[in-house]
Amino acid sequence: MNIQQYLQEKRELVERALMRYFVAPVAKRTETRYSNVLLEAIQYSLLNGGKRIRPILCIASFEAAGGKGDGILPFACGLEMIHTYSLIHDDLPAIDNDDYRRGRLTCHKVFGEAIGILAGDALLTEAFKLMTDPSSHQAQVVLEIVNEVAQAAGIFGMIGGQVMDVESEGKSIDSLTLLAIHQNKTGALIRVSVRTGVKLAGGSPEVLQAFTTYGEKVGLAFQIVDDILNVEGDKERLGKNTGSDQTRKKATYPSILGMEVSRRTVQELTESAIESLKPFGPEAEPLRAIARYMIARDY
Amino acid sequence: MNIQQYLQEKRELVERALMRYFVAPVAKRTETRYSNVLLEAIQYSLLNGGKRIRPILCIASFEAAGGKGDGILPFACGLEMIHTYSLIHDDLPAIDNDDYRRGRLTCHKVFGEAIGILAGDALLTEAFKLMTDPSSHQAQVVLEIVNEVAQAAGIFGMIGGQVMDVESEGKSIDSLTLLAIHQNKTGALIRVSVRTGVKLAGGSPEVLQAFTTYGEKVGLAFQIVDDILNVEGDKERLGKNTGSDQTRKKATYPSILGMEVSRRTVQELTESAIESLKPFGPEAEPLRAIARYMIARDY
Repeated sequence: MNIQQYLQEKRELVERALMRYFVAPVAKRTETRYSNVLLEAIQYSLLNGGKRIRPILCIASFEAAGGKGDGILPFACGLEMIHTYSLIHDDLPAIDNDDYRRGRLTCHKVFGEAIGILAGDALLTEAFKLMTDPSSHQAQVVLEIVNEVAQAAGIFGMIGGQVMDVESEGKSIDSLTLLAIHQNKTGALIRVSVRTGVKLAGGSPEVLQAFTTYGEKVGLAFQIVDDILNVEGDKERLGKNTGSDQTRKKATYPSILGMEVSRRTVQELTESAIESLKPFGPEAEPLRAIARYMIARDY
Repeated sequence: MNIQQYLQEKRELVERALMRYFVAPVAKRTETRYSNVLLEAIQYSLLNGGKRIRPILCIASFEAAGGKGDGILPFACGLEMIHTYSLIHDDLPAIDNDDYRRGRLTCHKVFGEAIGILAGDALLTEAFKLMTDPSSHQAQVVLEIVNEVAQAAGIFGMIGGQVMDVESEGKSIDSLTLLAIHQNKTGALIRVSVRTGVKLAGGSPEVLQAFTTYGEKVGLAFQIVDDILNVEGDKERLGKNTGSDQTRKKATYPSILGMEVSRRTVQELTESAIESLKPFGPEAEPLRAIARYMIARDY
């Protein structure tokens, strides 16, 4: 399969859905007293050329588990919205204080810090709104999915990992603590993206188990590749300065385990992720290709 | 009925439930690598002597609409958590820059700005986790409620109102714009608190309609009383400086319509809120008493 083309198609699918959700209301809103700036800040942050890894994994898992149609889109978009909110808040002066992301000024640099905070809050809230919108899915399944997404994004997931990350900056931490940060900060949301796809498709417990293992390995590999690219990636391609982790004395896989072990770990995680899909046929080919693509990526 | 005692009992009920949710995990977490600071910041902000208006209205509406038992508690607590997150974020330097709330230092003054942002994010996320936790309620009803809460807390609700508020600071606005700010910033969440109670109790469309009107009027009256207390309340009793709206050149009911009209409006809204409960008997007495109490309050 042509993975580049596959990713391109899915990205466009997700972006069109995000546009429908956040652009349509603007027209409606001209009659009201609502301010445009919030929606502008959201659109700016949401439609900025992201890789859309989480929604694509969600859709690919849905389809590999036998799901049909576009009922998965509200969940895929919800996961991307949660990811985007976390980036906006991470970039704030009080946290990472980043001026650029993907080659463009960060949300708070363009719209101010107050709107940055509120745009993040809005994306998180609207993600839950979107995922609980009336649909033809079984309410019980939707509830379970939303509950699991909230768990993955919350204290014992993404936010917990972010707090650990903030707290360990400038400190010397061991590799197990770094693993815990990664598993929570980025791993939990990637893992639940895969699980959401399987659950909505009505996949069996065996499929859920196998895909979850895949999601855990791919999520960790993804983060280590990010760490590696922060050291030796191409600034233009990445749209941000490399070396920022080092400047900030941030613990990363390369800084703790060295570049060679980091690369080998990514290789092993990828092989092991693909191995966990062994019981499946061509329907899981996109998931295998995504795993391979994620190591090879240069941004 | 003794409204003071009623409010006290319900407050304790809500606070015990909040404690169960956020204190129990601390013990569990000692085995893990999670940091304590996030949960400390959440507990600090959540258990700070708030009036618990939203959860109490939610419970009172649930019981008035025939609901029994404590199945309403996760929703009542979720609404209070959303309210608390909004206060933490409002208090941040980039937004209202408040050092004190209810007589104590604000969250970011104690735990730092990064943890303030993340504690707010966590409360919002965990509210959705709590409201979608497996329960004995009909999944379809729970989904509808969560969807409506997200709507009330989002772009076309609380956050939208907050953005309008931020944008109109220092500007001259008319009374209709002020009304729109209030209806969104505080009104939407109070309104949905009442509706959540009715919906979970399985109340009829007529009950839902009548209680919604009640919630809208009480919500607006509540906000105008807040504005009035900001001018002439007792600093000790309020736990914060009065006159802050004026210092900040914030448009309020007293500043736009004058104190006399503001007071009269509160009186009329309260009578009209109680009037909307006319078809109901003693089961709605707590709601009537809450409406009366809200005008008489001095903090």
